[in-house]
Amino acid sequence: MISKKMQEAVANSSAIRAMFLEGKEMAAKVGVENVYDFSLGNPMTPVPAAYNQAIIDAVENENSLELHGYMDNAGYPETRKTVADNLNKRFGTEFEGKHIVMTVGAAGALNVVFKTILDPGDEVLALAPYFGEYRGYVANHQGILKEVTPDIETFQPDFHDFEQKITEKTRAVIINNPVNPTGVIYSEETIQKMAAILEKKEKEYGREIFMVSDEPYRELVYDGNQVPFLTKYYDNTFVTYSFSKSLSIPGERIGYIAVCPQMADCEQVCSGLSVANRMLGFVNAPSLMQKALVKAIDSTTDVAYYDRNRKLIYDKLTALGFECVKPQGAFYLFIKSPDAEEKKFVEEAKKYHILMVGGTTFACPGFVRLAYCVSYEMIERSLPAFEKLAKAYGLAGEK
Amino acid sequence: MISKKMQEAVANSSAIRAMFLEGKEMAAKVGVENVYDFSLGNPMTPVPAAYNQAIIDAVENENSLELHGYMDNAGYPETRKTVADNLNKRFGTEFEGKHIVMTVGAAGALNVVFKTILDPGDEVLALAPYFGEYRGYVANHQGILKEVTPDIETFQPDFHDFEQKITEKTRAVIINNPVNPTGVIYSEETIQKMAAILEKKEKEYGREIFMVSDEPYRELVYDGNQVPFLTKYYDNTFVTYSFSKSLSIPGERIGYIAVCPQMADCEQVCSGLSVANRMLGFVNAPSLMQKALVKAIDSTTDVAYYDRNRKLIYDKLTALGFECVKPQGAFYLFIKSPDAEEKKFVEEAKKYHILMVGGTTFACPGFVRLAYCVSYEMIERSLPAFEKLAKAYGLAGEK
Repeated sequence: MISKKMQEAVANSSAIRAMFLEGKEMAAKVGVENVYDFSLGNPMTPVPAAYNQAIIDAVENENSLELHGYMDNAGYPETRKTVADNLNKRFGTEFEGKHIVMTVGAAGALNVVFKTILDPGDEVLALAPYFGEYRGYVANHQGILKEVTPDIETFQPDFHDFEQKITEKTRAVIINNPVNPTGVIYSEETIQKMAAILEKKEKEYGREIFMVSDEPYRELVYDGNQVPFLTKYYDNTFVTYSFSKSLSIPGERIGYIAVCPQMADCEQVCSGLSVANRMLGFVNAPSLMQKALVKAIDSTTDVAYYDRNRKLIYDKLTALGFECVKPQGAFYLFIKSPDAEEKKFVEEAKKYHILMVGGTTFACPGFVRLAYCVSYEMIERSLPAFEKLAKAYGLAGEK
Repeated sequence: MISKKMQEAVANSSAIRAMFLEGKEMAAKVGVENVYDFSLGNPMTPVPAAYNQAIIDAVENENSLELHGYMDNAGYPETRKTVADNLNKRFGTEFEGKHIVMTVGAAGALNVVFKTILDPGDEVLALAPYFGEYRGYVANHQGILKEVTPDIETFQPDFHDFEQKITEKTRAVIINNPVNPTGVIYSEETIQKMAAILEKKEKEYGREIFMVSDEPYRELVYDGNQVPFLTKYYDNTFVTYSFSKSLSIPGERIGYIAVCPQMADCEQVCSGLSVANRMLGFVNAPSLMQKALVKAIDSTTDVAYYDRNRKLIYDKLTALGFECVKPQGAFYLFIKSPDAEEKKFVEEAKKYHILMVGGTTFACPGFVRLAYCVSYEMIERSLPAFEKLAKAYGLAGEK
């Protein structure tokens, strides 16, 4: 009954659901407190009170028809200006409201960008390991996703492979920064190198190649790290953002696209994004959430909460002999599987009631992702289980 | 810089924007009270107080992380059940929560349905005149839209043409009920005839053909008219809905898909819709709005307001000699252009500061659409202008 592509997508999706159900069954058997579910990347820290207050204020004081009404497909002018001003203040950029398109989250933003720039058969490079949903987003608009292999020591991209993969069909590179699933931040040096390669290739092929930066984790950074703001390094850049993580409101579907003011044909591109927002059926970002942002844009969730988790799990797991790059941002740990087949490792971990996701999902087999956006207490409780898991693989861990 | 398809879409969109700007210029010249803008289909009646109160209650009393958090891509179980129960109560249907997928408005719903059922090259029939955005929604998923001509006396479909247009490639028929732009309701008899033709063709071609009913105006009906609920007449039916008009909240992007429980492979189809919701970047319908619906699903806006407008504008314009079918629902009037070229009529009307949209946008040249979701006073003020317009065409109007 359903289309061929969707049959495949449903089958993949069933695997995730199967793990979810398995977790529930485990909990029923051994008690929910004895199941250590690190599989889901859901925000865990409280929604800032200022954001909830901004919602209530808007509903109580604004004209309802305007508050819940249609606006320009790109968003309310005051929201777009608020976002532009906020970025300029923090990153020294020069956005105006017209460079900002409010979207239905970052997932909406990426689809709007791809709809606007891709012709059928255009290629989009993704730097492995990457968020698996990108495959669907590119395919939705008849683009072809090509993978760039990582340097699996640092998880910065392999620049040689990056350059090799660019062809006359390459239209964009999608960059997730900080990276889900590794927690790595692509450094300023990395961005500069990539920008230089892209500029060279743009000239060689006589065609624009866009950087599309997906930054839902931009605010979740630790140890004083900074995420380079990409429009400062490369003109043909779209920055896509979601407030899902910074405000802990993933269900509300509110984000934006910031278009580099120096992009060629910037005005036409912005019109394209706005029209694509409508054509794809998003129409506009939810209006009440746009209005709340005007008052609460400076709010952020409690990043220290995730940092405390990060330190605990990273320190303990590496001490047990697990190998992984130290995360600088986001809320994930990407561990090298001690078994050549990561799938077997994922299964072995389940024996100790630890749930995690295989790296194959992120186009990086041989690794597993742990999401530490969980309670600190759950991590503490899980440590004896990890110890047993380490012993099962004969890792040289602490006593 | 932008894709070929989007260049075309931006050009079309500019025409709408041009009219909007023209209206603004007119207002600056002759005063906003002397411009009669009937071009936009935006809700005009107050948002029900119960809905706003439900939002405030949810923010004040519910756990913030759950309220604004991720849920199953199909929506919160209690919201899905609330919608199912509401439909069952009103239409005698037998939906369960699992048959409901909450969506980002009806535009989102239609895209999710088409993503789920269309393979490249599949054909979708649309009954002219139809909402122009359908073209984009079908093309997004590589479908091909084919138009069925109307009976332009009644604006019910021409059944002969309908049957002729169905081929082995036909995958769906999209039905807007009540119809934008005519205000006509497809009668029970029409639906039964179409269902019989589709069932015959399904057997002939050995393939399911879906009815996709787009019903954002379902609650806006007059003179005691009822919109037939399509799942009762044809098993392979999706009903898509938006609360934009019934609650006057078009900016919030909240709607749903109801899947006929008797649809073949119903469970697989529902899984497909849920996965498509995520893949397309909607992910889920905005969470706070879903929660508010649980409490406020029985609220509706003031339909009598639109009815009063309808009577005034229909009575006066027909008395002036303009020809149009009497609208039974929605908030549009579809007038026969007294000029063979509707474009000239639209231009002539502008001389009297009347703004309306040509029927070509709705695949029905020779007509124009007036949206009467405006203030009653504006309609009153516009009547002398319509009188002059009628005289300019020598219509046999009242003195």
